Amino acid sequence: MLKKIGIPQETARRLSLYLRSLRRLGQQGVDLASSEEITGFLNISPAQFRKDLSYFGGFGKRGVGYEVKVLRKEIEKILGTDVIWKIVLVGVGKLGSALLGYRGFVEFNLQIVVAFDNDPGKIGKIWEGIKIEDISKAKKIIKKNKIKIAILSVPAQAAKELSKELVSYGVKAILNFAPINLVLPKNIFVSNVDMASELESLVYKLKRS
Amino acid sequence: MLKKIGIPQETARRLSLYLRSLRRLGQQGVDLASSEEITGFLNISPAQFRKDLSYFGGFGKRGVGYEVKVLRKEIEKILGTDVIWKIVLVGVGKLGSALLGYRGFVEFNLQIVVAFDNDPGKIGKIWEGIKIEDISKAKKIIKKNKIKIAILSVPAQAAKELSKELVSYGVKAILNFAPINLVLPKNIFVSNVDMASELESLVYKLKRS
Repeated sequence: MLKKIGIPQETARRLSLYLRSLRRLGQQGVDLASSEEITGFLNISPAQFRKDLSYFGGFGKRGVGYEVKVLRKEIEKILGTDVIWKIVLVGVGKLGSALLGYRGFVEFNLQIVVAFDNDPGKIGKIWEGIKIEDISKAKKIIKKNKIKIAILSVPAQAAKELSKELVSYGVKAILNFAPINLVLPKNIFVSNVDMASELESLVYKLKRS
Repeated sequence: MLKKIGIPQETARRLSLYLRSLRRLGQQGVDLASSEEITGFLNISPAQFRKDLSYFGGFGKRGVGYEVKVLRKEIEKILGTDVIWKIVLVGVGKLGSALLGYRGFVEFNLQIVVAFDNDPGKIGKIWEGIKIEDISKAKKIIKKNKIKIAILSVPAQAAKELSKELVSYGVKAILNFAPINLVLPKNIFVSNVDMASELESLVYKLKRS
């Protein structure tokens, strides 16, 4: 039984780690697992794990452990990844093409169905099983397939305009790799991944230590 | 004059965005810039910009604006990227090889000097100007070059052991792309980039909206 409440971002992130652990255990043929077995690999404490699950009601049986398959499905349901989500990727540069082949997305039922670029040398090609279409077709393809999620891996200069266009086509959530803040309507969800800035903040900490 | 105080993570992140903006303005030949010119592109408010800078003392002149080159150098000094930092990359899979070519790091004086892998088909190759060495040579190379920062782009299964080894060779900061929590001594800095989990948390928000 899931309680319909908001959960902290960090909890959601850990849930996705538990999910990966459960999937791994399932692949190894494990049916029942203790909280230690589920979390040990992740380096998260069993106490934290139990606390996180308590948001959604109890799952495990004391002394028996967790049914791997059942818990996996419950967490997928909580996270919304019990169904396949179609995603577009915009910008097939070096990073974008690496993302096309990134298996981590597929694990979560996140499926890149099409990629867009404006480079005639790339348009029409199929990379990692995903067709690269002309960015000018984005409107038609996104609307037709009712796609709600986009990965934006274009240079900073292009990100501002493109993000607005994507939203106007119906995109509601953007995973943004361009190093700028996107300004979009309040009902649009944006998650920023800025690798250089992450690395640079490590330098900052190192320097001060 | 820099005050020697800790600054919030978010401020450090914005400083790195300002830095990119200042570099861009410098390339365009701009000598003096207003806070609006520096922040407009980033979609950060001028007020936020002035507040962030106020941590370190005043830089701009009222009515005149900021000297682009001077402010760039000051921020580099604050962030520690006024000198080149040597970095190793461990794991030249799809993501790792994209990171080898990622220009965002170079902009911050973050220089990947060598990459490691255990795949005989990759060892000895030079990709993006960076030599791929056998992981068995990591100890010698990291120690000899006194490298403090590593990018870890290996599968989850390998990350736990490898991170410990890197630390034992002298690495003090790790940018971790593997989807597990690394458990390392308190004096080691770790920054996690988990793209699938970011995307998955967007799905979670979408589903609840």
